[in-house]
Amino acid sequence: MSKIFSISKPLDMHLHLRDNDMLNLVGPLTSNTFCGAIIMPNLVPPVTTKEAVVAYKNRIKQACGNDTFEPYMTLFFQNYSREFLEDVKDEITAIKLYPAGITTNSETGVSSMDIETLRPTLQAMSDLGIILCIHGETNGFVMDREAEFMPIYESIASNFPNLKIIMEHITTKSAVEMLDKYPNLYATITLHHLLITLDDVVGGMLKPHLFCKPIAKRYEDRAALLNVALGANPKVCFGSDSAPHPKNKKESCGCAAGVFTAPIALQVLTELFEKHNCLDNLQKFVSDNAINIYGINPPSKTITLEKADFKVPSSYKNDTETVVPMYANEVIKWSLVN
Amino acid sequence: MSKIFSISKPLDMHLHLRDNDMLNLVGPLTSNTFCGAIIMPNLVPPVTTKEAVVAYKNRIKQACGNDTFEPYMTLFFQNYSREFLEDVKDEITAIKLYPAGITTNSETGVSSMDIETLRPTLQAMSDLGIILCIHGETNGFVMDREAEFMPIYESIASNFPNLKIIMEHITTKSAVEMLDKYPNLYATITLHHLLITLDDVVGGMLKPHLFCKPIAKRYEDRAALLNVALGANPKVCFGSDSAPHPKNKKESCGCAAGVFTAPIALQVLTELFEKHNCLDNLQKFVSDNAINIYGINPPSKTITLEKADFKVPSSYKNDTETVVPMYANEVIKWSLVN
Repeated sequence: MSKIFSISKPLDMHLHLRDNDMLNLVGPLTSNTFCGAIIMPNLVPPVTTKEAVVAYKNRIKQACGNDTFEPYMTLFFQNYSREFLEDVKDEITAIKLYPAGITTNSETGVSSMDIETLRPTLQAMSDLGIILCIHGETNGFVMDREAEFMPIYESIASNFPNLKIIMEHITTKSAVEMLDKYPNLYATITLHHLLITLDDVVGGMLKPHLFCKPIAKRYEDRAALLNVALGANPKVCFGSDSAPHPKNKKESCGCAAGVFTAPIALQVLTELFEKHNCLDNLQKFVSDNAINIYGINPPSKTITLEKADFKVPSSYKNDTETVVPMYANEVIKWSLVN
Repeated sequence: MSKIFSISKPLDMHLHLRDNDMLNLVGPLTSNTFCGAIIMPNLVPPVTTKEAVVAYKNRIKQACGNDTFEPYMTLFFQNYSREFLEDVKDEITAIKLYPAGITTNSETGVSSMDIETLRPTLQAMSDLGIILCIHGETNGFVMDREAEFMPIYESIASNFPNLKIIMEHITTKSAVEMLDKYPNLYATITLHHLLITLDDVVGGMLKPHLFCKPIAKRYEDRAALLNVALGANPKVCFGSDSAPHPKNKKESCGCAAGVFTAPIALQVLTELFEKHNCLDNLQKFVSDNAINIYGINPPSKTITLEKADFKVPSSYKNDTETVVPMYANEVIKWSLVN
């Protein structure tokens, strides 16, 4: 009889669902396994109004089509007034800050990380208990961008000690080391950054489906991420950063950044934690820590997996969209039990 | 009247011409501007016999179709006997050593860089005056592979002081610094490594046509390369490493490494040296230094360029092959005068 493993209320604390046909394709692939997710606001145009948040949440609920999935909504960071934030507060869990131009659809992001420019909005967020999620990269050399951003995390964390700050999709030893320095700094970690290094992207043949921002780093960086993830450090939680791009945009000149992991994330996390003899910690990494950090109360849902080979499809598609998942055409060792 | 610049006997000391239809397509694009080139032996199967060298040279001459282009032939490094090397000596200029599996068609390369294993062949090469060209990368982390190879260069250079060793397509400050340490160490430098860093490959959108081995490195590495190239350091010369791959193999999942620069190399080098006010040094970098290092006597040929915009074609093609050049669809500032 095959090995069975169950997990309660799995959460994905960093998710891109896009919109329209792509949302309809990828939404159910997340809601099938997760009971909730932090939804990124980098649509075109970005989500910056209460109306846009509510309407997008409704479209997500419709696409996901079940009551056991809660989309935790975010706004795209701008300098918002306190009045606006008071009004929108109950509709959102966090606000996501992108430095301008740093990743997909971030062109209208923050052009200066000057703390005084950001202060009124950050102070209001702190007062109202709205979490700040940050894509922490400078516009420096691609391998240094995250490490160079650390002083900015330090500045925000020390200036706003009551503001909860999530370092999104951390990829470096530098970021892991920050976790111990400030009580209000937390982090999400993706599946793919626990698995790959730059070698997997450009070390052999070029692998566009593993090309992401922040770029995968060095082995010592991956080791630092694995250490806090497998150990279920209470300041980190799972955020897939699953980022669907149309197949033809990934497999062409000028391919966009993003790894699409939604349909295989929970299974591969199980495989990874089992391999490292840390399966007991997965519940914390993929759920409990997030519930504590974000103070949320997600819908009840238990997912059962069995240790049985699953061949990952070459793609997922509907009438208009085709997306290639990580491990396309490969065999993973755990399957969902329906 | 537009500015005119002439260059005598331009040489490309590291060139991939492939074979058959691809050779017929790309050969003339090099022989049109260069009077000679060191021809890489990594065909499938690799060039390892006298017959193969002679036959390949004849196919190249036929493809290039003119008397003002000399293919300087190389053998694919193996442990060859002294008798064989004596016999083949007049047909080759150098032997190219690839660590196994390090780049395109290098699977049958050297599996151990142990100096004692290589000694008989290297000693015979040294005695016979055959130049050793090396693709100097370990199988370590992609950004460290060349720097990690430096002790191997040091070992060969010090064990065989009369063997001329070419560090091919160097990409790092570490390699540049080696030039001053051993009188018998030289280097080729590509066009693309004088122009790009890793940021150009993966820092924005993914650029498969700029994906190459060794991978482009950091800004300080590029600065070190520019310093010795623009200064026409007598120990370095131009080697394009122009590496044509079919368009569909470059623009797909698992794209092969290589930048195709043959048709635009001399023009863009002119633009680069002019921009840095070093145009007077280009003759040395692209010809004189190579003639001195390799002790060759290339065919007479003078190429004249004018400062006039040239729109680089989107691709070069014949009935069966299509190759995308660097700067496809972009405008470069110098043109060939026919």
